[in-house]
Amino acid sequence: MTRIKPSVLAGFMELSPKEQIAFNELKDIIKNVYESFGFLPIDTPVIEKSEVLLAKGAGETEKQIYRFEKGDTDMALRFDLTVPLARYTAQHFSELNFPFKRYQIGKVYRGERNQKGRFREFYQCDVDIIGNEKLAIGNDAEMPAIIYEIFSRFNFGAFTIKVNNRKLLSGFYKSLSIEDPSAVIRIVDKLEKIGLEKVKEELKNLGLSESVISRIISHISLSGTNEEIICALKDKNIEDEIFNQGLSEMEEFLSLIPSHGVPKGIVKLDMALSRGLDYYTGTIYETVLNDFPEVGSVCGGGRYDNLAEYYTEKSLPGVGISIGLTRLFYKLNEAGLLLTKESHSARALILPMKGFERECNVLANDLRKEGVFVQTDYELGKLGKKFAYADKSGIPFVIVVGEEEVKNSRYTVKKLSESEQIIVDRKGLSDLLRNR
Amino acid sequence: MTRIKPSVLAGFMELSPKEQIAFNELKDIIKNVYESFGFLPIDTPVIEKSEVLLAKGAGETEKQIYRFEKGDTDMALRFDLTVPLARYTAQHFSELNFPFKRYQIGKVYRGERNQKGRFREFYQCDVDIIGNEKLAIGNDAEMPAIIYEIFSRFNFGAFTIKVNNRKLLSGFYKSLSIEDPSAVIRIVDKLEKIGLEKVKEELKNLGLSESVISRIISHISLSGTNEEIICALKDKNIEDEIFNQGLSEMEEFLSLIPSHGVPKGIVKLDMALSRGLDYYTGTIYETVLNDFPEVGSVCGGGRYDNLAEYYTEKSLPGVGISIGLTRLFYKLNEAGLLLTKESHSARALILPMKGFERECNVLANDLRKEGVFVQTDYELGKLGKKFAYADKSGIPFVIVVGEEEVKNSRYTVKKLSESEQIIVDRKGLSDLLRNR
Repeated sequence: MTRIKPSVLAGFMELSPKEQIAFNELKDIIKNVYESFGFLPIDTPVIEKSEVLLAKGAGETEKQIYRFEKGDTDMALRFDLTVPLARYTAQHFSELNFPFKRYQIGKVYRGERNQKGRFREFYQCDVDIIGNEKLAIGNDAEMPAIIYEIFSRFNFGAFTIKVNNRKLLSGFYKSLSIEDPSAVIRIVDKLEKIGLEKVKEELKNLGLSESVISRIISHISLSGTNEEIICALKDKNIEDEIFNQGLSEMEEFLSLIPSHGVPKGIVKLDMALSRGLDYYTGTIYETVLNDFPEVGSVCGGGRYDNLAEYYTEKSLPGVGISIGLTRLFYKLNEAGLLLTKESHSARALILPMKGFERECNVLANDLRKEGVFVQTDYELGKLGKKFAYADKSGIPFVIVVGEEEVKNSRYTVKKLSESEQIIVDRKGLSDLLRNR
Repeated sequence: MTRIKPSVLAGFMELSPKEQIAFNELKDIIKNVYESFGFLPIDTPVIEKSEVLLAKGAGETEKQIYRFEKGDTDMALRFDLTVPLARYTAQHFSELNFPFKRYQIGKVYRGERNQKGRFREFYQCDVDIIGNEKLAIGNDAEMPAIIYEIFSRFNFGAFTIKVNNRKLLSGFYKSLSIEDPSAVIRIVDKLEKIGLEKVKEELKNLGLSESVISRIISHISLSGTNEEIICALKDKNIEDEIFNQGLSEMEEFLSLIPSHGVPKGIVKLDMALSRGLDYYTGTIYETVLNDFPEVGSVCGGGRYDNLAEYYTEKSLPGVGISIGLTRLFYKLNEAGLLLTKESHSARALILPMKGFERECNVLANDLRKEGVFVQTDYELGKLGKKFAYADKSGIPFVIVVGEEEVKNSRYTVKKLSESEQIIVDRKGLSDLLRNR
């Protein structure tokens, strides 16, 4: 028989079971926090009609999209969860309740250039709150509360939620008589990647004067506490309506943060934060891990005026954030942060002596009813090999069951981390296994 | 602006948030039970190399596969989770611990003829136990224990796990000097679909004599308790090695079932059960809901000798089952069985009076820390509309927070199911919301 070499496509992540458990733990934290704020789950198809996915044009992503035909149908794999949300909200508008709070955790596809740490299939974990025609700033202020809860539980050390408001940017640029503020925003967005000098150069190439450029640079370089930056912005006395609307939104937004239990210093006003996407119109967010700046933004998002204009005439403002879990996992796993703890779902491996399978099944069934997850190994074999199996798999205890154990209801338990044997009665066994 | 009509592709299921919650509850039960037996999660890519997915040939499925090229790469969407498991096990053989117990819950893709209740994207929920060269029958006996636990928790009424052993079929057919037992197996597999007369006719078309056909019919029609059928099989005194091996496997298998706590009558030996796939070589399973026979098999599986022969020379016997959750959900939802209970993750909708957003955030944050999921609605508006929103969304309680509430730490709670208002203090509020 000719055999095919088993392998996956380049750029597709595949984890070992142990890594998968760690990955799922992060995914479960995200899901749990999203649900704790009342977000509802949706699960849209991975394949959609190309005309739907590309209604807006996918910009950069258009080249990367997985698009194909089956029969006469032109279809494609989703490249994010926002376009499907827009389609879903427009399609099911009349059945939905607004504000519509939804979360979706799922795989998306982008045929990016093959590069270490870049994946063509990756998880996005999104929450959005969609209003029908209006949406209060209170919703914007909920996003940092969600991010704070998730990253606190992740336990990857300190993190910073950088925030800004697009109106503070575009209003300011307008006040400088810049015709195309979005071109400036796109350039400033690259600040961290290309550095200050390059930004200046690109702004110059836009035809801006030295004095305008230096005012832009001083604007995006404003530093200090949030209160100090707000003061500095007020002191500029900019008479642009958009700018002042942004200022009042930002003040209201910041004033709500402490009531969510988010400690001072986590949410940091950053006038250099731009987020390149044209899409955003108000509050914007980007989260970085203070100890791992090289990971980049681990959670971004913002406020937008019109979610679904390509599908409906309804005005649907919204605010949302997205966590790119695959990349985050990859980076933190590389940094050795994820696989430290015991990970197997089973607390014990139960080994029947020959002829004692039934007794093991009864014990396993009873333990499961008590909420203790256990695995039974029916293969007869050397104990040493079994211990090694449990140890390698990450199962912390092994219980051997034979005539002695059954007759006396006393169990010899091997604790693998300490190569120690303990003899316990049936109740002691439950206590031992339940006690993490 | 030209707008695109928002819609999904034909044959793709998309649920309302309320349905999605019910769907996820079933998915979570499956996941929880799989983990309680010590199965490890894996999450293979949805897209694989076509040569890998089609190494064996996908049979019927080959026409249905979503296959396409990107750049020079010929790729396809997985049509089941078994082929990816085979590839995974062969590829990562040296890092895995055997027996390798894995579960995978994920979407698979088949471009089937468009038909009500048939889906082109659907969830499969698989567990398999893979041995390295050998695998004890004790593992086969664990499958009904898993099925029993899952379907008991599903609470869709009584169900039957039909079992058989392919050796009892092929050995018997061989004893009748039938050259191609698998042709007979494929015909008998259609019994429920086409009826006894059609089966007889097709067996005749194979060139079998009347007497052989009547012996086949009597074999597959054996009825009675499992013990009675085993006796009847023994009484046949069939001197075929395969048959007798099947008989002894089946006896051992059945003898282990009660120790798993599976009540008598759930696991039912059925000599007509064939499962068409060539793949299976020993124990086979099919589960039906007694009150919903029209749903057909809700969980099937079996024992196979060689998981990954197209990718490795290693001998990897295994046993596994699969639940087709999308179809099961669709059928039971149509039967009105799924959306009866309260479903929203949030227990209460918190409504701030104007200016009391901060107090609401503090309350919401405190309640979440107690494990109570709540949603805050920042949109000011009529109370009646807010009550309707909570009611329609399935949120059971509404709490309005204003000056009175904050000053006196007493909360007026509206219980929507009973249109009743209750006034409670802060502790009473926690008790009320926590008590499901």
